[in-house]
Amino acid sequence: MIYFDSAATSWPKPPQVWQAMEHCIKFVGANPGRSGHQMAVKAGRLVDEARELLSLLFNIANPDRIVFTLNATESLNLAIKGLLKPGDHVVTSSMEHNSVTRPLHVLQGKGVDVSKVACSGDGGIKVADIENAFKPNTAAIVITHASNVTGTLMPVAEIGRLAKRKKLKFIVDAAQTVGVFNIDVPFMNIDLLAFPGHKGLFGPTGTGGLYISEGLELTTLKEGGTGSMSHIPGQPDVLPERYESGTLNSVGISGLAAGLKFIRDEGSEKIRQHEMGLTGRFLKGAEKIKGLKVYGPAELYERAPVVSFSLEGKNSGQVGTVLDQQYNIACRAGLHCAPDAHRTLGTFEKKLVRFSFSYFNKEEEVDFAIRSLAEIAAIPPEKFNKKDDKSCGC
Amino acid sequence: MIYFDSAATSWPKPPQVWQAMEHCIKFVGANPGRSGHQMAVKAGRLVDEARELLSLLFNIANPDRIVFTLNATESLNLAIKGLLKPGDHVVTSSMEHNSVTRPLHVLQGKGVDVSKVACSGDGGIKVADIENAFKPNTAAIVITHASNVTGTLMPVAEIGRLAKRKKLKFIVDAAQTVGVFNIDVPFMNIDLLAFPGHKGLFGPTGTGGLYISEGLELTTLKEGGTGSMSHIPGQPDVLPERYESGTLNSVGISGLAAGLKFIRDEGSEKIRQHEMGLTGRFLKGAEKIKGLKVYGPAELYERAPVVSFSLEGKNSGQVGTVLDQQYNIACRAGLHCAPDAHRTLGTFEKKLVRFSFSYFNKEEEVDFAIRSLAEIAAIPPEKFNKKDDKSCGC
Repeated sequence: MIYFDSAATSWPKPPQVWQAMEHCIKFVGANPGRSGHQMAVKAGRLVDEARELLSLLFNIANPDRIVFTLNATESLNLAIKGLLKPGDHVVTSSMEHNSVTRPLHVLQGKGVDVSKVACSGDGGIKVADIENAFKPNTAAIVITHASNVTGTLMPVAEIGRLAKRKKLKFIVDAAQTVGVFNIDVPFMNIDLLAFPGHKGLFGPTGTGGLYISEGLELTTLKEGGTGSMSHIPGQPDVLPERYESGTLNSVGISGLAAGLKFIRDEGSEKIRQHEMGLTGRFLKGAEKIKGLKVYGPAELYERAPVVSFSLEGKNSGQVGTVLDQQYNIACRAGLHCAPDAHRTLGTFEKKLVRFSFSYFNKEEEVDFAIRSLAEIAAIPPEKFNKKDDKSCGC
Repeated sequence: MIYFDSAATSWPKPPQVWQAMEHCIKFVGANPGRSGHQMAVKAGRLVDEARELLSLLFNIANPDRIVFTLNATESLNLAIKGLLKPGDHVVTSSMEHNSVTRPLHVLQGKGVDVSKVACSGDGGIKVADIENAFKPNTAAIVITHASNVTGTLMPVAEIGRLAKRKKLKFIVDAAQTVGVFNIDVPFMNIDLLAFPGHKGLFGPTGTGGLYISEGLELTTLKEGGTGSMSHIPGQPDVLPERYESGTLNSVGISGLAAGLKFIRDEGSEKIRQHEMGLTGRFLKGAEKIKGLKVYGPAELYERAPVVSFSLEGKNSGQVGTVLDQQYNIACRAGLHCAPDAHRTLGTFEKKLVRFSFSYFNKEEEVDFAIRSLAEIAAIPPEKFNKKDDKSCGC
């Protein structure tokens, strides 16, 4: 199988990842931060190690400002709902994933004012448009680092400077960039960085995190046992426990730490070059396929390794199904949990097919996919599309 | 090492658990419910299988009413905050874990009225006292199935009948009983059942769940991508997606499914008998140790396999440390994230040492622990306690 769905979750993982998980579950299987015995302390150290590796990756001085969550969606919910209060105004883009738009939708019902800055047809945003959207009560900017549909990279450093100048909080969704692109939290003036553990960081599903800048206090999403200050009726103020109620996914986090070490040892520059090389190779090959339209930026340097496209006259869901069933290429066709992005691209109705590349993909796989798409493109639409196709809803 | 800390998280796990996880991460590593390709469909089936196994365990007709979470604490937050509205009154016990008391504490600040029914010195509750606490605006009862400190079993079936008669919602925290004691959701009239995957069910950390009764709609704790109905601005109404935003811990859930199959194949009756046999053996041995005081019910049938005790004149934290460092016995000393329970027992200041037994513990381990405690008990307190001991805070 050719796996081009790493924007959903990366696969395969480096062997070190499941080896670390196996070691954790077999030999360090206690509850970190709960009991004082040796195995619990060791489990705590595994979790701390992951925090330290993340802090090095993001250039964060204090690892305890990184809290672990189930996934980036939980991180974004904690960031967005924890920060914004009724009466606040927040600026976001028209290219966001539902993990941003849906929490904001809930907050709109509670008196938070949301402005969605319209992006261009390739998913790009103008920083001036963000600034123009500001109101006296603007409290924050929430934006993705790269679109999960088109891979369009947002000018996060520039937006961060604007946020700092205007004294606004800056929330970044790094779901599609973490581990591949450089994320320097102080340089980019990021206040809240939400990231998954199971995509570019090569950790397993069940891992995600949120960096919370020094001095910033969020309303908690969940409260409960934290293994510290159990005697007080509310949540402790101290991080990371304040935002980490209940048992952590220590087994998953140990795998995440292994993924982070893999990135450190390979070098994210090498990873990025490989993934962007594949992306460029695909874009070049796709140009020659009649009727294939790629969405997103024309220039490779404006992209993350995510490419969405359509085949003229062909149902995108059916293209995805045929790629899967006849060519054994796993990709994602549909709305990609990002209806706003598809509205921006004008593809809300027809939807798109998405390829997303990982470090473990090979050039031959890209070449095979190009040949496969050329074959599919050559089929007359009337012999290809199915009536009432339901494979492409989401 | 002798591991007596399964009330925090069970260890070891059956080998099938990490074998299933390894299989998932190696061969079924796609994102369940997101893309339509074969590996994503297979990942979805793994998750569905766990849901079906849980529904069989709890006698639940529709597996989709079970949603997966990070841990039981998240499940309880979703249940409690999702259900209760300002102006509601809720009845709980004085034996609850912080995973119940802390969300309720937050809700108290938002106009929810909370009554904590005082339990007896052994942690037991009288159903009549629950009924006496009702007010015209009582909306729900929240109670643990068994105390995580004393193991005291609460009369859940009887409380369920009361809740049904009074048309109140019934929330049960099954953290210490799931997989060991019978939990029949319809028979017990449970509306919301919160459970961890990583304790009695032998799954890995990072897994938990909440059963939500048919027709009951909760306010969501988190919103985001659900892989379904991506086009609508808010969360879909359909379960389980409504309460499962973002990528699920499919790797962990595959391990949980293996844990559930292990329980099915061994039989929870056999598991319970073994664990309660160890508990009884420990209680009998502990009776002979001078100065050892066990808390909780006198009768074994009123207990889950969790025992907390103190040694006269000895700091509980130091007892835990000595057990760990000199006898290689892993247990949990402190407040066990349940300060209310310790206040009820009168042990808030002195704290307690907790042993919790699992199916993989052996009689010889209990006997060794008894001998070890007898040795510790024989040490004069002035030669044992350390000044400024900080090992026993939580």
